[in-house]
Amino acid sequence: MIRTIFAGAFAVLHLSSPALAQENAPALTPKQTETVDRLIDAGLENDLAWEVLESLTTEVGPRLGGSAAEARARDWGVAKLKSLGFKNVRIETFEMPAWSRVSEAAEIVSPFPQPLTIAALGHSPSTPEGGIEAEVVRFRTLPELQAAPMEGLAGKIIFIDEPMARTQDGSGYRTAVAKRGLGAVEAAKRGAVAVLIRSAGTDNHRTPHTGGMVSGGASLAPRPGAALSNPDADQLARAIKRADGPVTLRLNIQTEWVQNAVSGNVIGEIPGKTDELIVIGGHLDSWDNGTGAIDDGAGIAITTAAAKLIDDLPGKPTRTIRVVMWGAEEVGIYGGKAYAEQHKDKLDKHIVAAESDFGAGEIWRFDTRFGEASQPKAKPMANALRRLAITPGTNQAFGGADIGPIMRAGVPAVTLYQSGWDYFDLHHTPDDTLDKVDPEKLRQNVAAWAAFVYMASEMEGDFR
Amino acid sequence: MIRTIFAGAFAVLHLSSPALAQENAPALTPKQTETVDRLIDAGLENDLAWEVLESLTTEVGPRLGGSAAEARARDWGVAKLKSLGFKNVRIETFEMPAWSRVSEAAEIVSPFPQPLTIAALGHSPSTPEGGIEAEVVRFRTLPELQAAPMEGLAGKIIFIDEPMARTQDGSGYRTAVAKRGLGAVEAAKRGAVAVLIRSAGTDNHRTPHTGGMVSGGASLAPRPGAALSNPDADQLARAIKRADGPVTLRLNIQTEWVQNAVSGNVIGEIPGKTDELIVIGGHLDSWDNGTGAIDDGAGIAITTAAAKLIDDLPGKPTRTIRVVMWGAEEVGIYGGKAYAEQHKDKLDKHIVAAESDFGAGEIWRFDTRFGEASQPKAKPMANALRRLAITPGTNQAFGGADIGPIMRAGVPAVTLYQSGWDYFDLHHTPDDTLDKVDPEKLRQNVAAWAAFVYMASEMEGDFR
Repeated sequence: MIRTIFAGAFAVLHLSSPALAQENAPALTPKQTETVDRLIDAGLENDLAWEVLESLTTEVGPRLGGSAAEARARDWGVAKLKSLGFKNVRIETFEMPAWSRVSEAAEIVSPFPQPLTIAALGHSPSTPEGGIEAEVVRFRTLPELQAAPMEGLAGKIIFIDEPMARTQDGSGYRTAVAKRGLGAVEAAKRGAVAVLIRSAGTDNHRTPHTGGMVSGGASLAPRPGAALSNPDADQLARAIKRADGPVTLRLNIQTEWVQNAVSGNVIGEIPGKTDELIVIGGHLDSWDNGTGAIDDGAGIAITTAAAKLIDDLPGKPTRTIRVVMWGAEEVGIYGGKAYAEQHKDKLDKHIVAAESDFGAGEIWRFDTRFGEASQPKAKPMANALRRLAITPGTNQAFGGADIGPIMRAGVPAVTLYQSGWDYFDLHHTPDDTLDKVDPEKLRQNVAAWAAFVYMASEMEGDFR
Repeated sequence: MIRTIFAGAFAVLHLSSPALAQENAPALTPKQTETVDRLIDAGLENDLAWEVLESLTTEVGPRLGGSAAEARARDWGVAKLKSLGFKNVRIETFEMPAWSRVSEAAEIVSPFPQPLTIAALGHSPSTPEGGIEAEVVRFRTLPELQAAPMEGLAGKIIFIDEPMARTQDGSGYRTAVAKRGLGAVEAAKRGAVAVLIRSAGTDNHRTPHTGGMVSGGASLAPRPGAALSNPDADQLARAIKRADGPVTLRLNIQTEWVQNAVSGNVIGEIPGKTDELIVIGGHLDSWDNGTGAIDDGAGIAITTAAAKLIDDLPGKPTRTIRVVMWGAEEVGIYGGKAYAEQHKDKLDKHIVAAESDFGAGEIWRFDTRFGEASQPKAKPMANALRRLAITPGTNQAFGGADIGPIMRAGVPAVTLYQSGWDYFDLHHTPDDTLDKVDPEKLRQNVAAWAAFVYMASEMEGDFR
């Protein structure tokens, strides 16, 4: 039985890749193939990414978009890129409204008095100074709340208890983000005073997951909002089930909102023989509760180390490799938007862009978003990555939040897709710290990125 | 080679248990053997322990010794024991000095400004109101600090970075407790202003482990003290390594200390045919940061459920089964001491005592502390537990903190030794919550306890 199944599978594979079509497909030159292999070998022994990541997370630590800590991170970025020999190192600043956390506290007042662990969500307005006390009403999912009648929730605290699916590709996060963003909107429609959500996360630690409530981030959310850690959401659900009558909570969230804060993108380059650009990077800001090791110090470290490996090759690359440490991503993708505006006249020189912003897990898939005509070029790239246990993916690459604005302006992109299996155990929590990063997986990332960047720089023609 | 080793091992086993001695050894009657098996079967299907544990951790939650929450826990205990049909249900109160946490904060001031996550340790005095700012000096271990010269640490904050060994039998905790207790003593001797320790714990989460600094607990520690979570201890060690000069911290710990707080032991009984007693239980109080599921709600739940299984047997047990929910253990073993004093005239009626206070892991070993003459009685008990994957242990049973005072007064004891492998990932942290308990392991515990209690009640003669 097993033999039969395997024979069938092989047959399908052979039929789907006819030898004739292969002969005309784009391919790397023997010299390019050799260099890709050399870069992968070097990446798999690379310690620079770890060093960069340790340096950033230790010397700067948490670095919320628009904060003084993020400004220190920019200074760190400039110094680091210069010390590594990058050229044209600079900060491109922009203004943004900045949200920050002052304090947060929640407790069950009755019938089972006890504290609950919460994290205020980004863009949450403050409650009145002494907090609010109100009955809590539980909804198992966001759609359940959305389907609820408009009456009966005035003055209440809404609790959306929807759990999050663990997935390799991170698709569970889409529904989780909806709960985080839309809860306050639904609460406001119904006159509820605040919204609590079960953390958008897959762990069972008392480390609640923060994150933005407002997509785009230009204003505060219509109601105060906070995330309970998963064990606290369990606890509140049990308390509601065990109580004979209403469960009353006290919630005190204090936040600040400044209209004209300053942030910036840190840029450094490995100059090429032409003014065509390969843009790679990660975001420099982090949430305020962890040290931003996996989100997104890892992305900064991986792309910086990969570019450095290109610089270490003899001679200049054909295209310029531009590393961008994007500013203020978490709180509204301000860096990505500012870059697209500041560089709008030169986007035709942007050959391809990619962002590393999905943790520090191993890369398992290579996706592209190339023009129809350029799609065959994905194949030799994907093939070169297969020795790293990376499987060819789709032409629907997400790319990354920060390169979204230039992608929408026509810049091709790729995704070196990292495993999201453990990512949402740590994402946006105090637990996003250096000890969670596996140096060996970091090296696999550097190897794949160096190989990709080299191929993108050296392959003939563009990807539009 | 393997065969030879095994043959040797079997030979040793046979030699050490000669058939002749076996014939005269104490044994269970066939009826007792049958009842033990029935109790184990019932325990392995028992849901009562889970129900008790869910009820306590949900309806009361955290319950620090001497607090209003602990008083609510006592009311809960009385109601729960009565509802289960226990007799002579009562609270035996006592007075105690009570420590409590008000607030705690730590940050690196220079050269890498950022917050650190800490938990004030039990019995820590407060820092001055605005906190203290001082250079930190790192010691890799407690002995390294103890060996340090008396000069040079005045005005400094001492950081003991000693990690803790993961062990099945919990032996790694002994050194960890020394670090937690003696750090402040060493700091005081040298004129240091405070002590920070790496958490006495084996996890890598941002959930620092609290715990008492003063053995016996009758006074405050000589210096403020707090535990850094393990990732924060890593971070501080890295910061010290990366800094060119001194690393300065700001530390603000505010606590309260009340001399005449009230606590109490909650007691319930399954009356026997005689006034001889089997005393079992766990401690009712918990630290203030978690909901005390593994420490020690599980012990309360397991021993209550085991006693209830004895009550469900036809007829009365020979001896009275007394369940004690000990008060104020964590903060100074006040319940155990008060009981020994309050019952000092009846300790000769205490046949054997045991406490469940090492989490909710599976029981893997059966230890006794019997008199020389009674030692052979351990064997049939241990044999009856072997079907639960419990191995016969030593006659050096620790017993438990709360039964320590009556053990020292001559009461025999046993330890149903739980695995400590994961225990110190959660112990004394916010993460000590219900979701960490495995219901199947809880059932194995109940089965073993019911079997032990029955045998202790029915076997002829005492264990002195």
